[in-house]
Amino acid sequence: MTTIRDVAKLAGVSPSTASRVLHDSDMISEATKKKVRQAMKELDYSPNYLAQNLANKSNNMIGIVLPVRHDQPALSNNPFFMQIIQGIVTVCNQRNYMVSLATGQTDEELITNLTTLSKQGQINKFIFVYSKENDPVFDYVQKRTEAETIVVGSPYAKVTKRARYVNNDNVQAGKDLTNYLLKRGYQEVAYVYSNLSEVVQEDRYMGYKDALKAKAEHLLCLESSDQTELVANFLETNPEVDAFVACDDMTAIFLQQILTRLGLAANAYGLAGFNNSLIGQLVHPSLTSVEIHPYELGMEAAKLLTQATTKNYLLVEHTIIKRDSTK
Amino acid sequence: MTTIRDVAKLAGVSPSTASRVLHDSDMISEATKKKVRQAMKELDYSPNYLAQNLANKSNNMIGIVLPVRHDQPALSNNPFFMQIIQGIVTVCNQRNYMVSLATGQTDEELITNLTTLSKQGQINKFIFVYSKENDPVFDYVQKRTEAETIVVGSPYAKVTKRARYVNNDNVQAGKDLTNYLLKRGYQEVAYVYSNLSEVVQEDRYMGYKDALKAKAEHLLCLESSDQTELVANFLETNPEVDAFVACDDMTAIFLQQILTRLGLAANAYGLAGFNNSLIGQLVHPSLTSVEIHPYELGMEAAKLLTQATTKNYLLVEHTIIKRDSTK
Repeated sequence: MTTIRDVAKLAGVSPSTASRVLHDSDMISEATKKKVRQAMKELDYSPNYLAQNLANKSNNMIGIVLPVRHDQPALSNNPFFMQIIQGIVTVCNQRNYMVSLATGQTDEELITNLTTLSKQGQINKFIFVYSKENDPVFDYVQKRTEAETIVVGSPYAKVTKRARYVNNDNVQAGKDLTNYLLKRGYQEVAYVYSNLSEVVQEDRYMGYKDALKAKAEHLLCLESSDQTELVANFLETNPEVDAFVACDDMTAIFLQQILTRLGLAANAYGLAGFNNSLIGQLVHPSLTSVEIHPYELGMEAAKLLTQATTKNYLLVEHTIIKRDSTK
Repeated sequence: MTTIRDVAKLAGVSPSTASRVLHDSDMISEATKKKVRQAMKELDYSPNYLAQNLANKSNNMIGIVLPVRHDQPALSNNPFFMQIIQGIVTVCNQRNYMVSLATGQTDEELITNLTTLSKQGQINKFIFVYSKENDPVFDYVQKRTEAETIVVGSPYAKVTKRARYVNNDNVQAGKDLTNYLLKRGYQEVAYVYSNLSEVVQEDRYMGYKDALKAKAEHLLCLESSDQTELVANFLETNPEVDAFVACDDMTAIFLQQILTRLGLAANAYGLAGFNNSLIGQLVHPSLTSVEIHPYELGMEAAKLLTQATTKNYLLVEHTIIKRDSTK
């Protein structure tokens, strides 16, 4: 968070002078006012925000909320937590914010730890690096009137000034990847998912559907790489399908393994996933995938908390990375 | 770090009373002394440690040092950072320690951030969640005489009171997994690696070698899953090999993909890896692997920093998880 002290420092004046400029005091020369206002602009400083901060006793501490341990599979499933955290920490380090961490074995333990953290460290700013439906931890933080929260991920709750979101545009990404395959000459593209009740998978599916226009949908639900028979049946009943958009790289790799096991040539089908994971770069054929820029997601989340802004929802770009699994 | 205040609280006495027990004051009754000493024992409290703490102006803050961003591939390669961090945070939350984070794009930036962190937060206790050879960041922290460091990983530098380590016994794990395969009836086991100059891969290789005893070694270097010809040649020149110990799950999965592509049956060869990663549980056949307990690695690292102990090096158990890729 930019303070009046930062402004004063950049402008080369005392904090009280900067504060007087804020209230347009007659005691200050126009030259000084110009200098201070320039500094405010450069630092993206908002006077309303300052007043709010003072009222909230806010400080330069941010708490990162990690998912609870019983959500471990979800955790391992997302190799991007570390990159998100690195992005947050990079921005906070640059802006002299301290970053603290909270986690727990259970929701109750995490809530207890968050209480301690906010008491000990006077922390009122939190970044949730996960988002899940009906999260008691998120609800708890929201009930604390002084807390400001950024969630990295899909918005389950209502987006408000106090609960803001940083995310990829997963609908657009799904649409872009499907269109990419269609432009590369594939005729009938199928969507492969593991659980459509997960918002990310559903969003990408919506984008896929949108890109198809008049074309027919083909849906394949795949949860692991031992569902060989299921895939064989799908190929038989959907002979027109010549490419697959998978909801993520891991699902794409499961399908790739099954296609190999069915004795199909490496490029019998076009195949693309999301997340640009390391393993996708090393499998054969290497996987075309959508980079979702998790480091930038973390940076943007930290920026939202540490500077004056009116944005409540921020989308981070995605990039299609072409590899050997598509023509 | 347990303080005399924690001891006093547990014993239900004032801090000054607890301090007097420490100095075996005649002013305190035997019953109270017994109560306080019991509390010291329970809390693993050491008076020498306290004196040292006071001298070092230490406090209840711990800094977690993340790898720098240019080591990103190494980072993504290790899906356990998050679990290590969760283990650290769980212990710190329980013991009322605040956890802060430092990272950077480059070594220089990380060092700058660490300097800020230790000035702002008076942090003198650090946990490195990575270990690498000739790390300027580690060297910088070591030069600060008041800093205490725990490294999660293989010791590259000399183990000292101020630079302690928490690790798996990777030599023993390599030996155990190889012996496991031999006991399951495999005759000739090969070791698959990607880079033997990495300490973890080398340690596991040493264990493999040790388990073989009089048997011949078979070494296969595999860096991705497109080295089909290399593997075909290996199988031809090493026809006696009937099982593989891979240095990690990812390498095992690359080999599994190649074997499938060569048209071999799912269980033509025994195959086992390390790390018990999620993807290894979902590939076909599911992968026998060694669980290295990263959460516990993090917990032990935090325990070493937050309680009095004379241990400089601590090993965390490993567990072989049997799945379908071995008989």
